Amino acid sequence: MSITTPAGFTAAALTAGIKPSGNPDMALVVNNGPEFHAAAVFTRNRVVASPVKISREAIKDGQIRAVLFNAGNANACNGIQGDADAQASVDQVAELLGISASDVGVCSTGLIGEPLPMDKIHAGVEKLVPGLGDHGGAAAVAIMTTDLVPKETLVKGNGWTLGGMGKGVGMMSPSLATMLVCLTTDASATPAMLDEALRAASKVTFDTLDIDGSTSTNDTVFLLASGASGVTPSQEELNAAVLEASEDIARQMQADAEGVTKRVTVTVEGTGSDEQAVNAARTLARDNLFKCAMFGSDPNWGRVLAAVGMADADMNPDRISVYFNGQAVCENTTGTPHAREVDLSGADIDVLVNLGTNGPGRATVRTTDLSHDYVHINSAYSS
Amino acid sequence: MSITTPAGFTAAALTAGIKPSGNPDMALVVNNGPEFHAAAVFTRNRVVASPVKISREAIKDGQIRAVLFNAGNANACNGIQGDADAQASVDQVAELLGISASDVGVCSTGLIGEPLPMDKIHAGVEKLVPGLGDHGGAAAVAIMTTDLVPKETLVKGNGWTLGGMGKGVGMMSPSLATMLVCLTTDASATPAMLDEALRAASKVTFDTLDIDGSTSTNDTVFLLASGASGVTPSQEELNAAVLEASEDIARQMQADAEGVTKRVTVTVEGTGSDEQAVNAARTLARDNLFKCAMFGSDPNWGRVLAAVGMADADMNPDRISVYFNGQAVCENTTGTPHAREVDLSGADIDVLVNLGTNGPGRATVRTTDLSHDYVHINSAYSS
Repeated sequence: MSITTPAGFTAAALTAGIKPSGNPDMALVVNNGPEFHAAAVFTRNRVVASPVKISREAIKDGQIRAVLFNAGNANACNGIQGDADAQASVDQVAELLGISASDVGVCSTGLIGEPLPMDKIHAGVEKLVPGLGDHGGAAAVAIMTTDLVPKETLVKGNGWTLGGMGKGVGMMSPSLATMLVCLTTDASATPAMLDEALRAASKVTFDTLDIDGSTSTNDTVFLLASGASGVTPSQEELNAAVLEASEDIARQMQADAEGVTKRVTVTVEGTGSDEQAVNAARTLARDNLFKCAMFGSDPNWGRVLAAVGMADADMNPDRISVYFNGQAVCENTTGTPHAREVDLSGADIDVLVNLGTNGPGRATVRTTDLSHDYVHINSAYSS
Repeated sequence: MSITTPAGFTAAALTAGIKPSGNPDMALVVNNGPEFHAAAVFTRNRVVASPVKISREAIKDGQIRAVLFNAGNANACNGIQGDADAQASVDQVAELLGISASDVGVCSTGLIGEPLPMDKIHAGVEKLVPGLGDHGGAAAVAIMTTDLVPKETLVKGNGWTLGGMGKGVGMMSPSLATMLVCLTTDASATPAMLDEALRAASKVTFDTLDIDGSTSTNDTVFLLASGASGVTPSQEELNAAVLEASEDIARQMQADAEGVTKRVTVTVEGTGSDEQAVNAARTLARDNLFKCAMFGSDPNWGRVLAAVGMADADMNPDRISVYFNGQAVCENTTGTPHAREVDLSGADIDVLVNLGTNGPGRATVRTTDLSHDYVHINSAYSS
C-alpha cells in the first residue's frame, strides 16, 4: 500500500545528505500515464516558499507528470536565489525525464531561511531518475522530518485504486511543521473532477487538523491521476475515495504529532453556518488553557465556555451546552451536577459544544493537548 | 501608593473563607465624593459572568459609588442563580452604605461554574462596611488569585492624584485568568472625560497584553473619580495619567504571569492601519511555535514569518523585515548573515516586524514565552 500501488506510478528515494541525520531526504514521484491529470491545494500563508510558487504555476493547466520532494530544507525565505534554485531542480527533473518543466511540481520541507544545497540536490536528481520503480514506501520515508513513522494509505475503488503518502503537521519541530501529501490514483478523471474531490476532502480533513494554529509556508497536497486502470469513476466515487484517503493520512498525522498525549476531537453545532462552526471549533482547539486542561485530563468546561465566547460565530450565550466524551458537563451555560467527575484519562477525548441557536452549522476540528513535551521539543530544536 | 491615596476614597478587605487557602478574598472600595463619576471597560467575551452583567448596567449613568470585589469564585456560568446572587450582594452593600444599588459595581474572579457561597459573601459584606478606611493596600491583596505579588500604582497630577490596583492576567491558573483593575482619582472629571481617558488607555495597555490569547468571562476595569481635590485637569492631563497608571499595572501583570521566563514585546509596522498592526502583532504573540522559541532563547525568525504570513494585515510578502533586540535577522523576507547568532538569553526580548508596505499602521503587543511551567500550572490546577 503506497503511492506506487496504483498503476502508472513509479517512485524513487535516496539519501542526498541534506538532513544532518543522514536519513533519506529526497524522493521523486512520476506519473507514467496514459493521462497526467492533477489537482493540488497549497498553504493559505501569504509568506510562501519557492517550491510552492513553482508548483502553483505548474498545476494551473491541470497536468503534472512528476513531483520532486526534499526534506531537511524548506527553501523558504531565500529570496530570488530560492526561486532560482527550485526552478533549477525542476528543470533538471524535466530534462532527465524528457518532459516539460511546466509539468513538474516540487515540495520542500525543513528549515526556513537556509539556502538549498544545490550540489546535493543536483546529484540527488541525477540518481533518482534511473532509480524509479515500485518504491512508494521508500518515498514516504524520505519526506519525513520529525515524524516518528511514515504515513501511507490505500483506498480501493471499483477497478481502480488510490494511494497516498504524507508527512508532518504542526506540533513538530519549529520550522519543520510543513504538511506534505501526495495522493495517486489510476482512475481516469478530468482535472476538474480531481480538483472538486481534493478541495472537498481537504476542507474537512487537512484544513481542520489544527495542532497549534500554525500554518507552514510550504504546505502542499497533490492528487495525481494516471488513468492507467481504464476506469472512470463517478464524481461521487472519486470524492469518497479521496476523502477516505485524506482522513486516513490526517488521522495518522494527528496521532504522530510530537509531544502529544491526547487526541482531541472538537465538534461545534447549533450555530449559523458550517463556517461559523469551524471558527468556533478552531478557537477552542487553539486555546492554550483548554489544551493544558486536556493534558491534565481535567474536565474544565469553564475554559471551553471562555474560549468559544470569543469566537466569530452565532451563539446564545445563555444556552450553551458542553459534552465531554458524550456526557453533559454544562447545559444552558450552567454546570451539571458531577460535571467535574467526568473521566478524561484516556488518550482520546471527544468534545461537543452546542452554541444554543437553531442554526444548521456543524463542524469538527481535530487537535491535541498542550504537553510538557510540546514545549520541550519546540524550544530545544535549534539549540 | 494605593487606591485610597487619592482623596475621597476608602476601602476594606477581609478573609471571608471563599478561597480554600484562607487568604483574604473580599474587598470593598467606596467613593465618598463629593462627585461619583466613573467609567468602565469590560471583557469582549460573549459569555459574561453575572457580576459583569450588573456592573455594565450600573455604569450606564456614569455614576458609581462603590465596587465590591471577591476572589476565589468567578460567579460565571451559574445561570439565573448567579445573577440573583450577584444582585443580592450589591443590594446588601447599597443598603449598608445608604446608597442606591444601581450605583454599586461588582467584580468576581476565581473558578467558573461554582455557586457563590452566599453565606460567606453576606457575612463578609456585613464586616467590610464598618471596616472602611485607608486600606487600599489590603484590597489589592484580597483580589489576588494566583498572583505572586499585589499590583498597585500611583500617578501624581497637578494638585490631584490617581491610584490603581489590579490582579491577574492570562497564563495564570485555568479559570482564574481574569483581569480586574480599579483606578481611583480625586480629580474632578465628567463621566465622558473619564470614559475617553479609560478607553484610550485600555486600547494600548490592557487590550494589547496578550499572554495566551484567552479572554476571561469576568475582565473589568473601573475608573472612579471623587472630585475631592477640587482640581479639574484637562482631558490631555487626565488621559496621560490614566495611560501611565494603566501601563504600570499592565507591566506588573506581564511580569507576574505565572510560568513566565521571558517578557516579549512585539511591535509591527509597515502595514495599512494600527488595527492591522495589532492583528499581526497578536497573531505572532499567540503563535505557540514562536512562544516556544522565545522560551528557548532561539532567534528563529522563520517562525516569525510563518506566523505573520497568516495575519489579517496588509503586507508585501517579499519585503518583510524582522529585528530581534534591535538587530536585523531578516530583510526582504530573507535571513541576514549571522541571524541565528543573536543573543536572546536575557529576560526581555524585543521583536520588531516591518511588513514591507508604506502603510502607517503601527502597534505593540506585550506577551510572554511558552514555558514548561505554563503547561504545568495550567494542567495541574484542578487536579
